[in-house]
Amino acid sequence: MKLGLFGYGTIGRGVYTLIEQLDKSYNCEIKKVFDLPIKKDLLGDKLVCDINDIINDNEIEAVVEVLGGHDVPYEVITKCLKSGKSVITANKEVVSNHLEEFINLAHENNASFCFEASAGGGIPVIRTLIDNIKVNDVNDIYGILNGTTNYILTRMDEDGLSFDEALKLAQKNGFAEANPTADLEGLDIVRKINILSSLAFKGNISNDDIYHYGITGVNKAILDNIKSLGYALKFVASSRKVGNDVTIRVEPTMVKLNHPFASIKNEFNAVLFTGSTNGDLMFYGKGAGSIPTATAIVSDLVSILENRSYIGYKNENKLVVNANSTNTYSYYIVGEDGKGKFRERVSDEELAEALFYARVLD
Amino acid sequence: MKLGLFGYGTIGRGVYTLIEQLDKSYNCEIKKVFDLPIKKDLLGDKLVCDINDIINDNEIEAVVEVLGGHDVPYEVITKCLKSGKSVITANKEVVSNHLEEFINLAHENNASFCFEASAGGGIPVIRTLIDNIKVNDVNDIYGILNGTTNYILTRMDEDGLSFDEALKLAQKNGFAEANPTADLEGLDIVRKINILSSLAFKGNISNDDIYHYGITGVNKAILDNIKSLGYALKFVASSRKVGNDVTIRVEPTMVKLNHPFASIKNEFNAVLFTGSTNGDLMFYGKGAGSIPTATAIVSDLVSILENRSYIGYKNENKLVVNANSTNTYSYYIVGEDGKGKFRERVSDEELAEALFYARVLD
Repeated sequence: MKLGLFGYGTIGRGVYTLIEQLDKSYNCEIKKVFDLPIKKDLLGDKLVCDINDIINDNEIEAVVEVLGGHDVPYEVITKCLKSGKSVITANKEVVSNHLEEFINLAHENNASFCFEASAGGGIPVIRTLIDNIKVNDVNDIYGILNGTTNYILTRMDEDGLSFDEALKLAQKNGFAEANPTADLEGLDIVRKINILSSLAFKGNISNDDIYHYGITGVNKAILDNIKSLGYALKFVASSRKVGNDVTIRVEPTMVKLNHPFASIKNEFNAVLFTGSTNGDLMFYGKGAGSIPTATAIVSDLVSILENRSYIGYKNENKLVVNANSTNTYSYYIVGEDGKGKFRERVSDEELAEALFYARVLD
Repeated sequence: MKLGLFGYGTIGRGVYTLIEQLDKSYNCEIKKVFDLPIKKDLLGDKLVCDINDIINDNEIEAVVEVLGGHDVPYEVITKCLKSGKSVITANKEVVSNHLEEFINLAHENNASFCFEASAGGGIPVIRTLIDNIKVNDVNDIYGILNGTTNYILTRMDEDGLSFDEALKLAQKNGFAEANPTADLEGLDIVRKINILSSLAFKGNISNDDIYHYGITGVNKAILDNIKSLGYALKFVASSRKVGNDVTIRVEPTMVKLNHPFASIKNEFNAVLFTGSTNGDLMFYGKGAGSIPTATAIVSDLVSILENRSYIGYKNENKLVVNANSTNTYSYYIVGEDGKGKFRERVSDEELAEALFYARVLD
C-alpha cells in the first residue's frame, strides 16, 4: 500500500521511522510527504509542497495527517476521504469538531478514518472504548489527559518547585510548548475528553459546552495543604451521562492517595471509565511525545492494512450537553486569605471568585 | 449469524444475556446450547447434550466455549475450527497449552479464534497486546492476574483478617472457588502470563517452565512488616525477554506504595507492559466474575461480526524459556524466626527453604 504523509515535524518523523520498521510482509511504503520547501534536504523527491499532489494521487490509498491546526487539516481530511483514501490523524482540534462528519464520510466512501492518537497519546484508549461500548454502556469517564500539566504538578510536588520553575523545566525537557496556554487552561484536555465522550455517549458535543478551569493558580502552599489532607492534586477531566444529560468538566481535582490516579506521574496519562457490565477499566501510559504518539498512529495503520479498522460509530442525536447547571460535586476552595475550605454544591459563579479551587473526587 | 454456546454455567449465562442485549442490527442469535440434561428447564429446545449437535450444524458459524477443563474443550475447539466455525473461548488452561495450534487452525480454515477472556477477565488486554506488538517490541510484562488472591491480600491488609478468614470471605462473596488451590498456588496465573508472554514474545511457552510460588504462607505479621517498610504485598507474575531468553516467575511481590500496582485492590487485575516505542502501558479492571468475563467474550463476538477479528500471530520459534537459572532479583526472605531480611541474587533452592518470601520490585 502506498501512503501519503502530511507533516514532517516531530510526530511526522516518528511516524516515518516506525513505518520503515514495519514487518516487510505489509508491503507498505510512504510515497509522498507534504511539508514546506525547507524539508527538501531531508525528504528529497518524496517532498511535495501542494496538498493536492497527495490528494489527487490515485496510487495513494491511505494518508497520515499530523500537521496541527484546523483549516488545512480539515481540508486534507475531507478531500482525502471523499477520494476514497483512508485517513489517520492525531489532530484533536479537528477531530473534536468534526468527528461525526469524518466517520460518515469514511463510511460513504468505503474508506477508514482512524484517530487513536488524538486522545491519550500512546494509550490505545479509543479503539478499546469503541469496542467496549458495543457491549457495555459507559456513563462515566475520568481522565488525566495532558502530559504537560501532569508533569508540572508532579515536579512541584516531588521537587518543591514553584509553578514557573516546573513549567520551565517542562519546556526544557520537551513536555511543554513555547506557548503553553492551551495546556495550562485545559483547552487541550477539553478536546480530548470531547472525543472520548462523543464516542462513549454516542452523540455530538461542542467544545464550548465543556467547563474548564486551569491550574495556573496553584502554588506550593496549596499543594502542601492538599497533601496534608491526604490527597494528591491532579488536572482531571470528568464526563458523566445521566439519562441524556451530559456534564463535562475539566478542573484541578483532589484524589485520595490510594486512588489509581494518585500514582500517575510526570508525562503519563490515564483514562478511567465505568461500564455497565464490566465496571471500572483504567488505562495508563505515555500521553505525549513523538514516538508514543507515532506508535498509536502506526497501530491505526496496521489495523487498516489488516482490514480491521472499521468503526461502527453512530450519533444517536439524543444528548443534552451541560444540562446540569447545578453542580453537585464537592470542592476545596481557597479564598483570598490563602486558606482552603471544603464545600458542597457550589455554583460555578462562586467557584469563579475563588483564588484557586479543586474538585474533590470521592 | 447463528451461534452455538458450549457451557451454561455462571459465565455461559452471562454470555447468553449479553448476546440477547446486543444491537439488533448484528442479527445474531444463539441457536444451540450444549450442557447437561438437567438444564432442559432453563434452555428448552435450545439444549443439546452431544457436542456434535453443534459441531456438525452447518448453519452455526461461530461458537463460544465456556466449559472449563481441558479434554472436551480441546476437542470442541479443534473440531469447530476444522469445520470452519469461529471460536471464542475463556479457557486459559486450553489456550495456554495449544495457542499456536488454534491460531494456525483458524487461519487454515478461514475462521477466527478469539480468547480475550482467557487472561485479564474483563480487561481488554489481549487484543491491545496483539495490536501493540506489531509496532512495538514488548520485552517486560508484569501482571496482577488473579482476582481471588488479590481479594484475599486486600482484605487481610485492610480488615486485619487472617489468611483463612480472608479466604472464607472470598469464597462467601463468590471470588474464590471451593477448591482454591490453583488460585492460591499461582497455577491460574501461570496459564494467564503464559498466554500474554507467548503473544508478546512470539513463541511457544510451556506452563511447566514457569516458576511459581504461592501465597498460602503469608500471615498478618508478615504483611504488617512489609507495610512498615513502605511496601504493599501483591501476587505478581513477571515475564522478561532478554535476547531470546525468557524468564517467567509468579511469586508474592513487594511493590512500593506509590507503584501503580499498590492501588489495585480486591478482585481487580492489572497488566503492565513495557514497549520499546511507547514505554509503560498499564491496564486495570475487573479480572473475574461472570459479567466482566462475558463482556470480553461478547466483545470478541462483535469483532467477528464486524470482520475485524484477525489475529496475525506467528510463532518465531526462537524462545529459550527459563534460560536464566541465576535469579538476579532482590528478595525479602522470612526465616524460621519469623523475621525478614532483604537479599539479592538468591537461588531458587535457597528461596525454597524460606518460611515465606516476596520478590522486591524496584
